[in-house]
Amino acid sequence: MESSSYWTAFLVFASINLALLLFASTITASVSPAAGGSGIPEVKAYLNGVDAPNIFSLKTLAVKVIGNAAAVSSSLHVGKAGPMVHTGACIAAIFGQGGSRKYGLTCRWLRYFKNDRDRRDLVTIGASAGMTAAFRAPVGGVLFALESLSSWWRSALIWRSFFTTAVVAVVLRLFIDLCGTGRCGMFGEGGLIMYDVSTLFDDLMTYHLKDIPTVILIGVIGAVLGGLYNFLMMKVLRLYNIINERGRVHKLLLAAAVSILTSCCLFGLPWFAPCRACPMATAEPNGACGSLNRFRRFHCPPGHYNDLASLLLNINDDAIRNLYTTGTNDVYHPGSMLAFFVASYALGVLSYGVVAPSGLFVPIILTGATYGRLVAMLLGPSSDLDHGLVAILGSASFLGGTLRMTVSVCVIIVELTNNLLLLPLVMLVLLISKTVADSFNSSIYDLILQLKGLPHLDGHAEPYMRQLAVGDVVAGPLRSFNGVEKVGHVVHILRTTRHHAFPVIDEPPFATAPVLYGLVLRAHLLLLLKKREFLPVQERYPKEYSIEGRFEAQDFDKRGSGKQDTIDGVELSAEEMEMYVDLHPFTNASPYTVVETMSLAKALILFREVGLRHLLVVPKACDRSPVVGILTRHDFMPEHILGLHPVLLGSRWKRLRWQKGAVTKYFRSLIVSLANRS
Amino acid sequence: MESSSYWTAFLVFASINLALLLFASTITASVSPAAGGSGIPEVKAYLNGVDAPNIFSLKTLAVKVIGNAAAVSSSLHVGKAGPMVHTGACIAAIFGQGGSRKYGLTCRWLRYFKNDRDRRDLVTIGASAGMTAAFRAPVGGVLFALESLSSWWRSALIWRSFFTTAVVAVVLRLFIDLCGTGRCGMFGEGGLIMYDVSTLFDDLMTYHLKDIPTVILIGVIGAVLGGLYNFLMMKVLRLYNIINERGRVHKLLLAAAVSILTSCCLFGLPWFAPCRACPMATAEPNGACGSLNRFRRFHCPPGHYNDLASLLLNINDDAIRNLYTTGTNDVYHPGSMLAFFVASYALGVLSYGVVAPSGLFVPIILTGATYGRLVAMLLGPSSDLDHGLVAILGSASFLGGTLRMTVSVCVIIVELTNNLLLLPLVMLVLLISKTVADSFNSSIYDLILQLKGLPHLDGHAEPYMRQLAVGDVVAGPLRSFNGVEKVGHVVHILRTTRHHAFPVIDEPPFATAPVLYGLVLRAHLLLLLKKREFLPVQERYPKEYSIEGRFEAQDFDKRGSGKQDTIDGVELSAEEMEMYVDLHPFTNASPYTVVETMSLAKALILFREVGLRHLLVVPKACDRSPVVGILTRHDFMPEHILGLHPVLLGSRWKRLRWQKGAVTKYFRSLIVSLANRS
Repeated sequence: MESSSYWTAFLVFASINLALLLFASTITASVSPAAGGSGIPEVKAYLNGVDAPNIFSLKTLAVKVIGNAAAVSSSLHVGKAGPMVHTGACIAAIFGQGGSRKYGLTCRWLRYFKNDRDRRDLVTIGASAGMTAAFRAPVGGVLFALESLSSWWRSALIWRSFFTTAVVAVVLRLFIDLCGTGRCGMFGEGGLIMYDVSTLFDDLMTYHLKDIPTVILIGVIGAVLGGLYNFLMMKVLRLYNIINERGRVHKLLLAAAVSILTSCCLFGLPWFAPCRACPMATAEPNGACGSLNRFRRFHCPPGHYNDLASLLLNINDDAIRNLYTTGTNDVYHPGSMLAFFVASYALGVLSYGVVAPSGLFVPIILTGATYGRLVAMLLGPSSDLDHGLVAILGSASFLGGTLRMTVSVCVIIVELTNNLLLLPLVMLVLLISKTVADSFNSSIYDLILQLKGLPHLDGHAEPYMRQLAVGDVVAGPLRSFNGVEKVGHVVHILRTTRHHAFPVIDEPPFATAPVLYGLVLRAHLLLLLKKREFLPVQERYPKEYSIEGRFEAQDFDKRGSGKQDTIDGVELSAEEMEMYVDLHPFTNASPYTVVETMSLAKALILFREVGLRHLLVVPKACDRSPVVGILTRHDFMPEHILGLHPVLLGSRWKRLRWQKGAVTKYFRSLIVSLANRS
Repeated sequence: MESSSYWTAFLVFASINLALLLFASTITASVSPAAGGSGIPEVKAYLNGVDAPNIFSLKTLAVKVIGNAAAVSSSLHVGKAGPMVHTGACIAAIFGQGGSRKYGLTCRWLRYFKNDRDRRDLVTIGASAGMTAAFRAPVGGVLFALESLSSWWRSALIWRSFFTTAVVAVVLRLFIDLCGTGRCGMFGEGGLIMYDVSTLFDDLMTYHLKDIPTVILIGVIGAVLGGLYNFLMMKVLRLYNIINERGRVHKLLLAAAVSILTSCCLFGLPWFAPCRACPMATAEPNGACGSLNRFRRFHCPPGHYNDLASLLLNINDDAIRNLYTTGTNDVYHPGSMLAFFVASYALGVLSYGVVAPSGLFVPIILTGATYGRLVAMLLGPSSDLDHGLVAILGSASFLGGTLRMTVSVCVIIVELTNNLLLLPLVMLVLLISKTVADSFNSSIYDLILQLKGLPHLDGHAEPYMRQLAVGDVVAGPLRSFNGVEKVGHVVHILRTTRHHAFPVIDEPPFATAPVLYGLVLRAHLLLLLKKREFLPVQERYPKEYSIEGRFEAQDFDKRGSGKQDTIDGVELSAEEMEMYVDLHPFTNASPYTVVETMSLAKALILFREVGLRHLLVVPKACDRSPVVGILTRHDFMPEHILGLHPVLLGSRWKRLRWQKGAVTKYFRSLIVSLANRS
């Protein structure tokens, strides 16, 4: 740039960006596609009980770390907070599945974690550690996991996650101290000293009662912008999905296109901004403005700076710090701010869907800060609020508008700026923006969850569920096994269905009438078939049948992701197919059951609160088969229910979002009661 | 004191204390005994689903506020944090029961809160607001409610509580600013500026890696002292219960005795401490030492102070601030500190059980701070830690040792001292003290819960529950109703039992065979009887029976505490007793049921996670009555189960606390597997 060979500079800039992003996209597309995107929706689904494959494997971990580093350094408008959360969850999940036997990283003590609940707890703790690492905010990390990720929470989990995040905060601080003294070589100081605005002009962080309307306005506009952001993001993601489905080449072409567009924006837009003299006479000998704000000279003569370049051509963390710095009200031009806002908004929407590990948080914070500063500039002298403070409020409102997070954002911002005085103001902004935006659409993570087709089950029952009974949504036909079943029948059922659990029904001579014995899992049936625990025909009803010594508890451990046994791996001879297997010792004799006339809403509450995967439906009267069906989470999904009963689609019970039905009902009952009294 | 008439001074001091405490005890014993003590165990039980009567009435609220103010000002060694939590919960509960119709403080909009879940949410929010008001720590208040009080938590509850606590913090700060300018008259500055140690000598709040063993030692000793505190407190409370049961006069006598003992200690002990010259030449003209530390001159000549009097004769908040202040290593004498520690410990154990609203927090913090300073003095020059910092760690370890709170204490301390650097150190101390103390006994709130006989249900199943089925603990006989039942039978059952719910069984002609229809509540039966919804004998099976227009939804609202209907209030004529009542429209047709062979542990998980009050037990085979029994929380209590099956008392399954059985089992299986391999 010094030698004014601008096209060369642009080519160098764009080609480095392109190379880095193509590298990130290539490793994501070929090695582990599950590492693409933010990772937070996948973690949220896992913590809800959805066993999505491969989201926590070692490959995913490696691709996530390397790919995200490459994507962010390619100047793409993405962040690193979401990938850090996924990384933390991966590391925790690898502990939870007992290390990796393939790579020799295992330990006998880890086998106590090989069950669903401990794995989920570990992933929750890992996710909160990841968020803490991203923002150096221990309490905020725990509250983020509590508020946005986890579906179930226990008291014991709180202090465990908190201790983890405290350790993360300490280690981070150690590194900051270490690198601050210059011993980190290439790392330098930049990456780790984040948002250290607490020491700058604290006196300007004041507000008065008359600023409340301004704050409310910021909240409402943030909500509208956030809802629009979600809407546009969904449209773009659907379009990208269509493109990406065509093959790997298309994915790379899309990534290349986005990268070139980003480079053009970042390099091209600052040309439209005027050059300004360095503020406060901070000009240095080499012509740059010496200041913490890292003003960029770009094409300006020495002693001047380009404010748009100072925002666009800085890393996201520095740009955010620039915007948050108090006492810098006149550093930026409104025109530049508007241009940067539009560019940031558009690039944010367009960049996330690229096949590479990318995050949403920091771009949203940056966009919100820009919008905040813009509002402050437009308000001008009618408001006493410092522009840096309004930028913080703008970030908060935009985060509330897109991600619908309240408490965690509040605590993270307070921990970042180390200023407890901001707490009520930020809380107010978040509350307003979340409430207003919730009337438009869901949070972006929920929308992405739906887009990916992950069956996330909410805790509250939809209104139309109250009109349905369990028997109305049970889908047949039901496959069940006898207490002592023929091997060939077992193999046939396992091959022809995809269910993961089957009821076991005892017939004579085990019981006088057919009665439900319990529930047996596919994984355990496959284990039985592998171990060939068969009985010949004549010994079908053994007097004494003991499995002691033939199995270990570890055999029944839940496998880690990506290591499921399949029926295709089982080969049996024709003679073995004729033998029998006794399912009684391997059946769960205490399954949860509901009567078929039970309200669907109540069954959902049971299913969700206890954290089940299968719920047996038994008949009301005793004259039929002892089991009517099995419910899984797919039976509770709105698509399934409304598909079975389309009449509910137009029902006034369905739309609770607008509260229209409830308001109408209230007025109707009011009028009726008034009429009755007269 | 100036005129050296010490006996007069003592008499004045002791009589004022006695009068205040007797006033507090009198109003507690006569107006509302439920207001005695801390209130946190009652709130915790309520949030677990226990409907203890009268804990949230207006009378309790008034007595709690006035009584606690009187008790604390009577120099009794109690605190105000627990009563503030109860006060906040009371206010919230009064909103939850729709205001108070008796006193005209009601509003139609509040009737939407008249259900169990919203009431519980409101009480949780109120309790967190109370804790915030006590320590001016918004995040700490929410985490306290989350960690120590609530049994169920929803995501939506987090931001609602957080907003409430943020408002509390703002209002507090407004008052502090207001009173700081001297406009509060008698209130002055003292009461509201709490623990403002953040501005004093922040540089001394440093620590190094070599201090970790010291910290661990503090944690372990704090745990031992805390466990001992719990043990002694339980003994004292049992003794006080025996005394208090004898009548009101005994309660007042006990309170008087404790008050006189406290006055003697507070006035008598400083005589043993030497007088010292005012530090740093801060002597004022009137002879007192001018300093924020509020040194007390007591009987010393002018320009001197008595360090033990400075601790004993200050209010608790000032004493804590004295101990936390950094840079005051040589202000206190080790002998005085030891005397104060023993006095504080003993008075804390003895004072809580007095019949008056009293708290535990602040005395524990004070005792812990003293213990911390003592440890720092004993360590002497071998440790670089500032004594104020060690006092903070001592408080944390003692809180962890008695109350077993981790995250909330950590956040409260960080918010109090406004110093994020302390976070990891405090976390480490809390972790160690909680873990060590958990091997001795439960937290003091859990012990008080057991002492009061409140049936708090834990979330995790005891080990011996895995050996039992539901049918093993169901207690008979079972009272049930027909779908259309005779009024006289209903009245008889309601009079002779104390159950709150009854199964409704349909017999011919409603069904071909006896089948379970649902569950009906006592409260709804009483409503039916009051409204006289009866049918004459000949119309027992009406073709069309509609209750439209005869009932409103509000009639079925759950009443507030203390307003339960009873069967004694129902008077029916002999003719009405012969009539019939149709229970079908008032029965819950979707009750939760379990099969009698279900594992008791699994039934407990269902009961607890869904938050039930009654769980119907149905038979496995179809040849008996359609209902075997009903489970309530009393059936899950250890006393009930072990009473039915005393053989489990000596079972190795019972004691999980010592982990002895698990360790033995592990070694046994290890040996077996080794033997099998050889």
